[in-house]
Amino acid sequence: MIERGLFIGRFQPFHKGHLKVVANLLNKVEELIILVGSSQYSHTINNPFTTGERITMIRLALNEASIEPNRYIIVAAPDVEMHSIWVSHIISYSPNFQIIFSNEPLTRYLFTEAGFEVKFISFYKRAMLSATEIRKRMLSGGDWEELVPKSIVQFIKHIDGVKRIINLSKKDNPY
Amino acid sequence: MIERGLFIGRFQPFHKGHLKVVANLLNKVEELIILVGSSQYSHTINNPFTTGERITMIRLALNEASIEPNRYIIVAAPDVEMHSIWVSHIISYSPNFQIIFSNEPLTRYLFTEAGFEVKFISFYKRAMLSATEIRKRMLSGGDWEELVPKSIVQFIKHIDGVKRIINLSKKDNPY
Amino acid sequence: MIERGLFIGRFQPFHKGHLKVVANLLNKVEELIILVGSSQYSHTINNPFTTGERITMIRLALNEASIEPNRYIIVAAPDVEMHSIWVSHIISYSPNFQIIFSNEPLTRYLFTEAGFEVKFISFYKRAMLSATEIRKRMLSGGDWEELVPKSIVQFIKHIDGVKRIINLSKKDNPY
Amino acid sequence: MIERGLFIGRFQPFHKGHLKVVANLLNKVEELIILVGSSQYSHTINNPFTTGERITMIRLALNEASIEPNRYIIVAAPDVEMHSIWVSHIISYSPNFQIIFSNEPLTRYLFTEAGFEVKFISFYKRAMLSATEIRKRMLSGGDWEELVPKSIVQFIKHIDGVKRIINLSKKDNPY
Amino acid sequence: MIERGLFIGRFQPFHKGHLKVVANLLNKVEELIILVGSSQYSHTINNPFTTGERITMIRLALNEASIEPNRYIIVAAPDVEMHSIWVSHIISYSPNFQIIFSNEPLTRYLFTEAGFEVKFISFYKRAMLSATEIRKRMLSGGDWEELVPKSIVQFIKHIDGVKRIINLSKKDNPY
Amino acid sequence: MIERGLFIGRFQPFHKGHLKVVANLLNKVEELIILVGSSQYSHTINNPFTTGERITMIRLALNEASIEPNRYIIVAAPDVEMHSIWVSHIISYSPNFQIIFSNEPLTRYLFTEAGFEVKFISFYKRAMLSATEIRKRMLSGGDWEELVPKSIVQFIKHIDGVKRIINLSKKDNPY
Repeated sequence: MIERGLFIGRFQPFHKGHLKVVANLLNKVEELIILVGSSQYSHTINNPFTTGERITMIRLALNEASIEPNRYIIVAAPDVEMHSIWVSHIISYSPNFQIIFSNEPLTRYLFTEAGFEVKFISFYKRAMLSATEIRKRMLSGGDWEELVPKSIVQFIKHIDGVKRIINLSKKDNPY
Repeated sequence: MIERGLFIGRFQPFHKGHLKVVANLLNKVEELIILVGSSQYSHTINNPFTTGERITMIRLALNEASIEPNRYIIVAAPDVEMHSIWVSHIISYSPNFQIIFSNEPLTRYLFTEAGFEVKFISFYKRAMLSATEIRKRMLSGGDWEELVPKSIVQFIKHIDGVKRIINLSKKDNPY
Repeated sequence: MIERGLFIGRFQPFHKGHLKVVANLLNKVEELIILVGSSQYSHTINNPFTTGERITMIRLALNEASIEPNRYIIVAAPDVEMHSIWVSHIISYSPNFQIIFSNEPLTRYLFTEAGFEVKFISFYKRAMLSATEIRKRMLSGGDWEELVPKSIVQFIKHIDGVKRIINLSKKDNPY
Repeated sequence: MIERGLFIGRFQPFHKGHLKVVANLLNKVEELIILVGSSQYSHTINNPFTTGERITMIRLALNEASIEPNRYIIVAAPDVEMHSIWVSHIISYSPNFQIIFSNEPLTRYLFTEAGFEVKFISFYKRAMLSATEIRKRMLSGGDWEELVPKSIVQFIKHIDGVKRIINLSKKDNPY
Repeated sequence: MIERGLFIGRFQPFHKGHLKVVANLLNKVEELIILVGSSQYSHTINNPFTTGERITMIRLALNEASIEPNRYIIVAAPDVEMHSIWVSHIISYSPNFQIIFSNEPLTRYLFTEAGFEVKFISFYKRAMLSATEIRKRMLSGGDWEELVPKSIVQFIKHIDGVKRIINLSKKDNPY
Repeated sequence: MIERGLFIGRFQPFHKGHLKVVANLLNKVEELIILVGSSQYSHTINNPFTTGERITMIRLALNEASIEPNRYIIVAAPDVEMHSIWVSHIISYSPNFQIIFSNEPLTRYLFTEAGFEVKFISFYKRAMLSATEIRKRMLSGGDWEELVPKSIVQFIKHIDGVKRIINLSKKDNPY
């Protein structure tokens, strides 16, 4: 079995689709690194949650799903402007890994070039189970709760996350 | 009476609507801090003026309106990527204040969370008295001058500001 | 004859239109500085090539056209947020020059203000000979090769550049 | 019992002293956040290890000490220039916490000001059990191994960490 | 009389020497721009105060000295790495000026090169009246209060500034 | 013969020792990339010259030495904080290369790790022929001119470089 694999996402927020992926990937690697990308953003309409909040949510969901904490490592990394350094940038912020799981074409392209094994992820109910859809439902008053693990529903309520997203979506004085 | 209040804007440029707001707020606080936001930008289509020019214009307009200079403080601050640090960032660049005047949802949300009193601003003739409208009129040859104080009209002419905005709006070689 | 002139571009990629411009300008100046702008980007849909690759391509094309290497200097510079420092920023990254060749309104405006002579460039077959058109053809399988010098065609094939652009254009999981 | 506490360090490298502290603090809080500071540095004489390597070492040591992985959370954050935003910066990168354990005067000062409870840490054999001492021994060929947990000794050997530090200490051409 | 002059300092903190300079320079220019440099730092041993605090102190001292507020403008600017852009950087952050008052060799050199008039400042009791001396006395329990205007003494006490500097001077765990 | 080699320096300024190295290395590679490091600095005591000036000096010296301009490529790159990305950072800013010439331990270490061939440089009269020695002589009025090629002597005089370094060495008001 491969020692460690890497799974990159923004997790705004982490949802049931991500959880399925993690559970799946843990059948393929001994340890999974879950990398929270775009860590330098928060409180924007597409990046509403801080890195700290995203780490908290991932941990809550994996605990809720009874996934053993010694099977995964959560890390975070900011974006870079020059994508040609992306691979060595990720390597700097993450424990060592041997395989990447990603459907994102640039990530696939760059890590393949760098000699890593890169595998596709099969997402479950992709159209519905997406962070974009969840943020859309939060804004429109739709049922976002069915798309995220219960512990994350609770956490988002606790930090009043839906109100935050609604506030972020409002425009007033174009400051 | 409250000691100090904070009023944040980009002021691209400062106009008669801003002036009314300042005059109004000075009935509510002893000193008003006028914070020039997005200070790191200039010479873009939405941010044509430098921080120095914006400070100059605000001073000119307040002098013209005979507002006592010991009633206001003009400061400036760049944007931040991680909005969760916005409140402490502003606090670092500004003299101490007890109240925020803002209609901008994110600013309202973050300062409220941080325990500040946040009040709405009633803008006068909002649709017309906006910096966006002024820049639009500058580009189309419309009457922008009626929307800004005379001393600012003069200053913008002195620095050839309309020509600058027209130049910024042109596209050629997509460099 | 003027000692040195400056020609700024992103060169994503350098094409036959650029080459004609360089050849032309070399009739007007003893040495031409070719400045690779936006040097901090690579592997994005509008900035697919690294600074190193862009420098390589320019050199290849000028060699292919038998332009003497002591007639030009290739340098690079990142973008700046505050455009009011653009002129002194460029001066810092480039050997000394006396004239700018540019159709880009902001560059023309800022260098004129700073007291430089600024001249227009006559581009040949502008609509077709553009980097945007080339990247579009690369994506759609069109004939991009006719628009760039042969040595650059070869180089782009060598680094598998078309595949890179196609990969960059794909969207998957909106990470 | 307090829900979560924060322990900040650079962990260059994590050693037996840090391990004792973690074990101790876990008697006082349900979960301990271990924050890897100065995360933007690596391969300097005082910051030889990357963030990814530091996270790996902490995990190895805590596993070796049989500390349950659901008792701690490892996160990382870069330094800031304006220390007045330090508290909100840390909050952004970390799960929520109620208490800080630190002997570092600035951290103590800023978090106390911000209303957090801040407690001193009792370090064991402070003079000897320090990362500075370890790096010194690595350079001079001393017995650094006795100061770090076995699994970290192994890891540092695996990545050839001593050789790296020796290389970093050499000066040649003052590039 | 010259319209506007520029006086740059870090003002950590503003003291009686600075005040004398300002009073003096106001005999030479109609308006004086007081530029708070190194605005990106705070809470370090050499830069203990935030930009907001420094602006507050300058205003207090000038009010205390009954200097008319329409005679001066306080602005702030961060440092730059590439000093060759220093002049245009300062111009971006400041209202327009015609003369610089500075004893700092680099500033004198760069502004002279850029065609500005640059004049020396005669400091009063230079050895004693310096911010470095003041911070030293704060640390050693000396009489710093005699060196700064009364209103600033009060302000520094109000924000507990001496305690802050003492805290910043302590070293513990070398985080 | 190896296609391309890389030679990194700060070249503050480029001197006869560097020139000897370039001439030597051109016996080993078809093309030599001369990379101007620390490109983001200028006008400091250790980095007095801008990137543009350094590029100009290198070109002058190589022309003076009748080295064919199609044998070398001059590029520039800023420093990075996280040294673990140094290799991919350099690769991004430079045309492709197969060998590195460097005595600098970190560069040697990182490029070796990345699988590059790294060779030592034999410097001629190392103690005397160094940029540090040259800057020292410039400050003390010593004979720096014997250490740099004639065309660079002329250039430094033309830009009044010695006066600049002397100015940078002066300290006044600790701004």
